[in-house]
Amino acid sequence: MSDIEHLRSLIRTIPDFPQEGIIFRDIFPVFQDPKAIEMLVSHIVNHINVTIKEKIDVIVGLDARGFLFGPMVALRLNAAFVPSRKKGKLPGKTICAEFKKEYGVDTFEMQVDAIKPGQNVIIVDDLIATGGTAAAAGQLVEKSGGKLLEYIFLIELADLNGRKNLLAPAYSMITY
Amino acid sequence: MSDIEHLRSLIRTIPDFPQEGIIFRDIFPVFQDPKAIEMLVSHIVNHINVTIKEKIDVIVGLDARGFLFGPMVALRLNAAFVPSRKKGKLPGKTICAEFKKEYGVDTFEMQVDAIKPGQNVIIVDDLIATGGTAAAAGQLVEKSGGKLLEYIFLIELADLNGRKNLLAPAYSMITY
Repeated sequence: MSDIEHLRSLIRTIPDFPQEGIIFRDIFPVFQDPKAIEMLVSHIVNHINVTIKEKIDVIVGLDARGFLFGPMVALRLNAAFVPSRKKGKLPGKTICAEFKKEYGVDTFEMQVDAIKPGQNVIIVDDLIATGGTAAAAGQLVEKSGGKLLEYIFLIELADLNGRKNLLAPAYSMITY
Repeated sequence: MSDIEHLRSLIRTIPDFPQEGIIFRDIFPVFQDPKAIEMLVSHIVNHINVTIKEKIDVIVGLDARGFLFGPMVALRLNAAFVPSRKKGKLPGKTICAEFKKEYGVDTFEMQVDAIKPGQNVIIVDDLIATGGTAAAAGQLVEKSGGKLLEYIFLIELADLNGRKNLLAPAYSMITY
């Protein structure tokens, strides 16, 4: 069994959450097993080291599940970790990007100067569905003058084709 | 300069956020410096290894800023990481505990069976103010049958004396 197959075996599928008709993929069992945490983080770090030649300066993690492994990946790459959060949660001066939700729009924020012009950036999150939040985070990287090299997701819901909305190539470990 | 003094020097103080009269302590600059991430995580792990004789089975991290370093601490201790989140965010069967907010009450949840009876547990979060959310997380640990050994915070707002509301001793790295 490969590391990816092992991680896939740990993901729990929960029907009708958070609402009827939605199949929820629960990544928290991965974090209940320290061997699986190590597998997840080292897989991502190895992927970056093998496929990207540039030095990575910043890992951007999306609130809240991107916070679970983003800082670990940043530490191992000797990079900064920068959060992207929903409006109103980050103090100080921020920049904003809107994204569409099922009903209406929502806003993602990033702290001004968290990313410096010219820095090489990767965005991480647990899951890509329609790609709306990831696209907004990508806009924030570009507004900051950062160079967005890649998106990395633990899970991709391929039917929704969210990667067509993204601003850079995407790598996902597990596809449903 | 000690590691604690260095971390303290990185915390940004932002007046009147999220509302007038509140002094916000921003920990995100710590995560922009991988050396500081390492300092934070190894300080916590060393504190646990020096002061607690029991094997730690579970690190509980509070949504969302406890997610930033809880999984790293868990990995280094060969322990599980278990989240405690606001109501409606965790799939599957959950247990609940209420906590008071400035206006009204809110509910914290944890997944059933995430903690097994008799397991040794530490709760981590970035900051303790009144201790309401940390107390609710402690109740969830106890409802699960876990043995709550300690709370660990990066920052404690000592004037609010939140530790009087907690269900176990608390260790905080930086006090204001």
